[in-house]
Amino acid sequence: MPEHQRADARRNYTRILAVAEEEVAAQGADASLEQIARTAGVGSATVRRHFPTRRALLEAVSKNRIDALCARARELAEGAQEPADVRKPADVQEPAGKDGSRDALLEWLTDLTAYSVSARGLAAALAYDGPVHENSCSAVLEKAADPLVRRAVQDGALAADVTVADLITLVVGIALATEHYPDPTAQADRLFRLAVAGLSPRS
Amino acid sequence: MPEHQRADARRNYTRILAVAEEEVAAQGADASLEQIARTAGVGSATVRRHFPTRRALLEAVSKNRIDALCARARELAEGAQEPADVRKPADVQEPAGKDGSRDALLEWLTDLTAYSVSARGLAAALAYDGPVHENSCSAVLEKAADPLVRRAVQDGALAADVTVADLITLVVGIALATEHYPDPTAQADRLFRLAVAGLSPRS
Repeated sequence: MPEHQRADARRNYTRILAVAEEEVAAQGADASLEQIARTAGVGSATVRRHFPTRRALLEAVSKNRIDALCARARELAEGAQEPADVRKPADVQEPAGKDGSRDALLEWLTDLTAYSVSARGLAAALAYDGPVHENSCSAVLEKAADPLVRRAVQDGALAADVTVADLITLVVGIALATEHYPDPTAQADRLFRLAVAGLSPRS
Repeated sequence: MPEHQRADARRNYTRILAVAEEEVAAQGADASLEQIARTAGVGSATVRRHFPTRRALLEAVSKNRIDALCARARELAEGAQEPADVRKPADVQEPAGKDGSRDALLEWLTDLTAYSVSARGLAAALAYDGPVHENSCSAVLEKAADPLVRRAVQDGALAADVTVADLITLVVGIALATEHYPDPTAQADRLFRLAVAGLSPRS
């Protein structure tokens, strides 16, 4: 492809993405691709060439948020590995790092919940949609959060068979189901805390 | 409206609903309304006259399942009110009916989860979508399940501030987020059990 065509394609990509960000923020994950093409001043075929699926568009729209969540996971994973400042008395029957790794994991999941609610399109970009490709949003996010989950399992703060994909799927579900509540953030946070504590744990 | 027009309208309604049931079963909640009109041999305007919104169509498609879930809730609520056959020793620190009301509620929620996954369109018909009208699917289902929830709260099997709407929304979210898993039923059941036990309950 000649240089001026490549430059055109880059400009189109940038313009379509900027319009898509606005449309998805306003309309949610179901934003009209035709409307995005019209507002960007390109044909539908051009939109499809850059973003072959709705999912690809939503992933591109969500990229900054995903990057921020990945960075936060890495930061929390480093923090959770430091020894606790205050040691518990030996008769407390839990591993020393349990509270720390629990807090780190829950803090990250709380951020994930808040982002999934506030950034429209993010939950749909993260919802399971077939085998995960190595460079997809979901794969990148799972990889970043995996140390937090493994540490929580190791310290007994999470059941051994719970995966990072389980946790992300549950949060995505909460975000999808609360999208049309009058206060989605409050309702999603409420359901997330309910799931953390357990609807009805065996006491 | 003359009788023959009313008869035509009834026939159209029945035909559109039958086609819609098939299309939603095959394509999910996003099934094309235009395709439903074409297959039913009516115009889009006729579909919209009978079902002014997608939600109204999904509610009609889901009616039999909703009725079955309501009947099940009533049956379980009656069962849960009977005294337990085996009394626990007095030193067990829980109200006599706690296990019974917990089991009844969880059995109903397990059915709701299974239905929400297997009956495509049901989760979307139950997702919160604005204030609930008295005869909407959600309202009818909430009313039927409310005694199970109140009994569980009364018996200490459920936190006092948890509402039937919270529980339905959580199940709907699990169904929406697992829809594209290779085995949605298994993954939804897994996440539901995780939420019941708690991701990381304070021990």
